[in-house]
Amino acid sequence: MASIEIVTIGTELLLGHLVDTNSAFVASALADIGVDVYAKHSVGDNPERLEMMLRGALDRADGVITTGGLGPTVDDLTKEAVAAATGTHLELHEASLRAIEERFAMMNRTMSDNNRRQAMLPVPGTVLDNPHGTAPGFIALREDKKFVAGMPGVPREMRAMMMDKLVPWLLERFELRQTITTRTIHTIGIPESELDRRIEDLFRSSENPKIAVLAHGGRCDVKIMAKAETADAAKAMIAPVEREIRERIGYGIYGVDQQTVESQIVDILRRRRQTIATAESCTGGAISDALVRVPGASDVFRGGVVAYNNDVKRSMLDVPADILREHGAVSVETAVAMARGARRRLGADVAIATTGIAGPGGGTEDKPVGLVWFALVADGEPRTYRATFPGDRGDIRARATMAGLSAIWRYLERADANVPITPFMSEARR
Amino acid sequence: MASIEIVTIGTELLLGHLVDTNSAFVASALADIGVDVYAKHSVGDNPERLEMMLRGALDRADGVITTGGLGPTVDDLTKEAVAAATGTHLELHEASLRAIEERFAMMNRTMSDNNRRQAMLPVPGTVLDNPHGTAPGFIALREDKKFVAGMPGVPREMRAMMMDKLVPWLLERFELRQTITTRTIHTIGIPESELDRRIEDLFRSSENPKIAVLAHGGRCDVKIMAKAETADAAKAMIAPVEREIRERIGYGIYGVDQQTVESQIVDILRRRRQTIATAESCTGGAISDALVRVPGASDVFRGGVVAYNNDVKRSMLDVPADILREHGAVSVETAVAMARGARRRLGADVAIATTGIAGPGGGTEDKPVGLVWFALVADGEPRTYRATFPGDRGDIRARATMAGLSAIWRYLERADANVPITPFMSEARR
Repeated sequence: MASIEIVTIGTELLLGHLVDTNSAFVASALADIGVDVYAKHSVGDNPERLEMMLRGALDRADGVITTGGLGPTVDDLTKEAVAAATGTHLELHEASLRAIEERFAMMNRTMSDNNRRQAMLPVPGTVLDNPHGTAPGFIALREDKKFVAGMPGVPREMRAMMMDKLVPWLLERFELRQTITTRTIHTIGIPESELDRRIEDLFRSSENPKIAVLAHGGRCDVKIMAKAETADAAKAMIAPVEREIRERIGYGIYGVDQQTVESQIVDILRRRRQTIATAESCTGGAISDALVRVPGASDVFRGGVVAYNNDVKRSMLDVPADILREHGAVSVETAVAMARGARRRLGADVAIATTGIAGPGGGTEDKPVGLVWFALVADGEPRTYRATFPGDRGDIRARATMAGLSAIWRYLERADANVPITPFMSEARR
Repeated sequence: MASIEIVTIGTELLLGHLVDTNSAFVASALADIGVDVYAKHSVGDNPERLEMMLRGALDRADGVITTGGLGPTVDDLTKEAVAAATGTHLELHEASLRAIEERFAMMNRTMSDNNRRQAMLPVPGTVLDNPHGTAPGFIALREDKKFVAGMPGVPREMRAMMMDKLVPWLLERFELRQTITTRTIHTIGIPESELDRRIEDLFRSSENPKIAVLAHGGRCDVKIMAKAETADAAKAMIAPVEREIRERIGYGIYGVDQQTVESQIVDILRRRRQTIATAESCTGGAISDALVRVPGASDVFRGGVVAYNNDVKRSMLDVPADILREHGAVSVETAVAMARGARRRLGADVAIATTGIAGPGGGTEDKPVGLVWFALVADGEPRTYRATFPGDRGDIRARATMAGLSAIWRYLERADANVPITPFMSEARR
């Protein structure tokens, strides 16, 4: 199996000023074509350390892919280090120089000598043009056929170059026919350890497909990854494993692959020709924002009210003044009144309301920071939930948003109320 | 200067299923105390490769910090690899075992043998307790005093352990007196190349403080980083450089360090004892969500209406039916009517409205996907902006949200309307 190491270049990565998303993108594209990533590295704009890193990586793997360090600024010495590590040399590439010149002419800007240097590329090698920016990419070929491929660090430029230029080259270079296909099963309301317990024997015994559990943001994904010569063959290997896992998990699967809680909500409502509205206090519009994220949300989403102030809860959602006075803004009674108001005023079939204390101030012994009430109303009795989320203001709001979306999905699925939506949440009967 | 390499562990990192944010956090915390990060690496859950990586890193640097690979699942062999690379051995740590047992008792869950293994820790070494999760961290000490510190991969657990346990240990271990202090100047509306041009000579000539320009999401930051024995000495080195840079940049600086556009908006309004309301269509609640992100937003934020549907624009914001009919929902007239409606109905001093076409469908020749109108109203004439944002639905909504926040800030600052808010946006006179 072909193996690659990835090196991302930039001092800002080592200072922690920038999170490296490029290497995840490259790794994912390589996994898709069945190339094994041995390791990933980040180094600063330091040609000696970069050269050492490249030499080490070329010893271990068949090739190295770098991102970053190709800009016009003075400290971009990537190409010199690549040439030294691969025994290639830099030559002016005329076609690339013309492309850079044209780009500058188009933007009515003057071109500097630094920009001219961007057309100096390793020989022997291959040029990877960059239709989205000035810096061309390259592949430098060492005598033994191992290689270093260099791409720019700007994500938009890098991604296009990876998919359109480098992936086809790698497929040919390694005569790749093996692909990796991944199926992701998304779950809500099942703790990671419980999920582990239910399918542990499967992921212990299965090498291909490989099975992994990934927890994030209060939900867990089960990933099934199969290697095969074609995507169809991989899918055929995944199908029986997926069936077995679904049986073991039972209730709590809300979707697969690209599906999100919010896309599932929009789909269910569209199938039923129903609409939804939101009334948010502590989540501040984040639930409505998540629904609008889904293309075609306009078919089912009427709109929402962010009722941050009590006057607004009264005037825009008809929450009775005596409810606010007697029970307070953060109460199950207010949550239900907000949801009812939103449903009626916005003309929706279903409405959700949130009201809570995100902190850092405003907590009391009875109503601590982190307390959030949720209410869902349609025809019939409202369903309400109470949660106390840990963490700071950002954590609490993020968890409340996710829990609110989960509550909508569960409500629409008319699902068993005994299964918790998140570990922090419980159903409340009034 | 003390040097460290960072190793993040997890097969999902090499498959690109997860973006590594942990290493950026660790790197940033190290930069703050004046520790040099030589390189960062990611390896899979593979003990042989991990051991090799650790040995190499210990050859080059004074110590290694790892994250991940401490969970209870079967393939977490990090500690065995660390012991092999450092010549330490694993022993059961009684206090950690009791802490894990108590945690499980508290959650009413049964503890497995895998969880018991989490209390096996390297000797000689130091234990880093984990108040936020089951897996304790550790520092394994090699005979020559080089070390490997291991922390869990869950960001919340790792961050607390890094700041509360590992940083104090490192300060003592390396007798650190040198600190790095960073000052970040945030700008809006100035392209990166233009910012470069204005301060290029400064960042070419200055080694300490070091100056860097970082572009992200339509804004640019200028970072000034000074090394000195004390934070005060570093601040004194930064001050004159900051003054010079501010003079060169002129208009467009909205804040420094932790300040965000939204926190500045809340601050300005609080100083003036004014309130704000939002009326959002294509941004779907994201502007209101950003305002609520700021602690204490309730002092100035009245609330908002997400008027995704035309009926809702009429009923909740009093947008006249004939404006919608004549000009359409995506028009400057509708934007102004929405903002006026929100200001009146929500009882705010200032209101912003957004209406646009986020796509993928719904575009026409006149009104293409990406077109967004913004309106700001207070007393007097409304100010309106038109923008056409590139990218997909997610990009367009993110840029529109940022541009909307920027427009509010600029409006409150009563700033020169000739300076563009983003490269995609222009002021429209009606």
